[in-house]
Amino acid sequence: MDPVRIAVVGMGKIARDQHLPAIAGDSGFSLAATVSPHDPGVAGVPHHKSLDALLAEGPPVDAVALCTPPQVRYELAAGALKRGVHVFLEKPPGATLAEVAALEARAERVGASLFAGWHSRFAAGVAPARAWLSDRTVKQVSIIWREDVRVWHPGQAWIWEPGGLGVFDPGINALSIATHILPRPFFLKAATLMLPANRAAPIAADLAFCDTAGAPIHMDLDWRQTGPQSWDIIVETDAGTLKLSRGGAVLTLPSGTTHSEDREYAGLYARFSTLIRTGRSDVDTDPLRLVADAFLRGKREQVEAFEE
Amino acid sequence: MDPVRIAVVGMGKIARDQHLPAIAGDSGFSLAATVSPHDPGVAGVPHHKSLDALLAEGPPVDAVALCTPPQVRYELAAGALKRGVHVFLEKPPGATLAEVAALEARAERVGASLFAGWHSRFAAGVAPARAWLSDRTVKQVSIIWREDVRVWHPGQAWIWEPGGLGVFDPGINALSIATHILPRPFFLKAATLMLPANRAAPIAADLAFCDTAGAPIHMDLDWRQTGPQSWDIIVETDAGTLKLSRGGAVLTLPSGTTHSEDREYAGLYARFSTLIRTGRSDVDTDPLRLVADAFLRGKREQVEAFEE
Repeated sequence: MDPVRIAVVGMGKIARDQHLPAIAGDSGFSLAATVSPHDPGVAGVPHHKSLDALLAEGPPVDAVALCTPPQVRYELAAGALKRGVHVFLEKPPGATLAEVAALEARAERVGASLFAGWHSRFAAGVAPARAWLSDRTVKQVSIIWREDVRVWHPGQAWIWEPGGLGVFDPGINALSIATHILPRPFFLKAATLMLPANRAAPIAADLAFCDTAGAPIHMDLDWRQTGPQSWDIIVETDAGTLKLSRGGAVLTLPSGTTHSEDREYAGLYARFSTLIRTGRSDVDTDPLRLVADAFLRGKREQVEAFEE
Repeated sequence: MDPVRIAVVGMGKIARDQHLPAIAGDSGFSLAATVSPHDPGVAGVPHHKSLDALLAEGPPVDAVALCTPPQVRYELAAGALKRGVHVFLEKPPGATLAEVAALEARAERVGASLFAGWHSRFAAGVAPARAWLSDRTVKQVSIIWREDVRVWHPGQAWIWEPGGLGVFDPGINALSIATHILPRPFFLKAATLMLPANRAAPIAADLAFCDTAGAPIHMDLDWRQTGPQSWDIIVETDAGTLKLSRGGAVLTLPSGTTHSEDREYAGLYARFSTLIRTGRSDVDTDPLRLVADAFLRGKREQVEAFEE
């Protein structure tokens, strides 16, 4: 079968670090174009300043990967879907839940594939963790996601703006794993969001969830961590403790520890390829819904101003 | 057919003003019990201090109407559904979107009916407004919901707590109408939430939505209105202007104005009865999702402290 001709839209850090190498490594795709108002693109690949220009002037594309900030994602996705072009949405899939639902309805109407990609679900330890937990009774869960925003999000002003999620930008990765591996749905009981005096988005958060059998799930999110970083999920069960660390890459079970190489974006593109070739969409908004619930129901506390 | 034996849980203003009269006026229901930790209940009707006590000790009930604040709604609903008891959720259906989704899944599993009631959708002008708009092209919409919180929510401290929604408690009524009558889905573009210095929930909000054809929908919510109150939705279309006022009770079309008596809760209970007798649920969370999106994406501004 011919490779899917794909354009990468929004040439920031995630596009260059992850999407371009994953596309280059997947024979199911060929990079047809790049789009960015500022970035010069990639040598030898057609480049446009806007998606509208690409769609109007070509080269022809079958799919787009949207790697822009979420605040501008809807218009781009709607414009692509309108022409029957398949769409891969980086996480989070949108700035609001309702816009993602509208995109899903539009994709269905035009028969294009829409994929809300959650890269952390493709970390090496996640699938075996999900399998191991599927017939266990969960007693309690602890999610600790503490990183240094200056290291991981340098100069990303949009992340602090309304719709940019703040510390939930990494935190939603943890939620994308937890919603995928835990055997029961869970929902928020209480939350405290800590907002720097000079910012519109939280720099830290403490969240108490509970699953439908009553098991408590505690989540500690902090962007002020210097020194060792933590991206850990610890699940206590009737059969012992499971620990996913390094963002899902390392899995420790009572029987031992497995490390594997990072294949997250290869997994995402393999999935997107399958969706396109089978005419389906995959738009799971559960992680974003939990974040929206935290903003809806959480208590806000002002903390020290954050200067980059 | 025997009437559905129903208990009213949470004997606040809405239960006494609306639910009890609607149940008394509907031959499909009989009031079997009331539940409240403080309220003495109704003469001649069994009363319990908790839903657990009612479900354990009887009298037997087929359904419950949950009129408590949303923050405690989930446990009550889950406890009732576990026993196969049908559940009517006052608006908003929960404190979070995920908990409502969990309840919906549970209702389906046990074969009980779950009804997320949006009373404003049963206002007299709403069904004809929906019918009139169904084949019109919407150009723009203005929603103006300005009321005096001191008049309409005296002493309701929970409404200002996290999960209590603040001015979105009435505002969600407007959204329940708009999502029902407008022919296209819509989603948030920008929002400003105004929070009193001493409160956790907004006292006013300015919201810009847009429908999937690009028509702008502006919403002006304010709880600081004294004098005349406004609960108006104005829809400009290719065939002239529609105006719903008095919260949906009065409909003005280019052809004239219709006033009708308030039958909102009678309509809600007729719908709940149909759901129970046909073994279905009706759990539309679109209005709450738009509110969550406003909390997720909205900008916050501090305004003057509010003292009741």
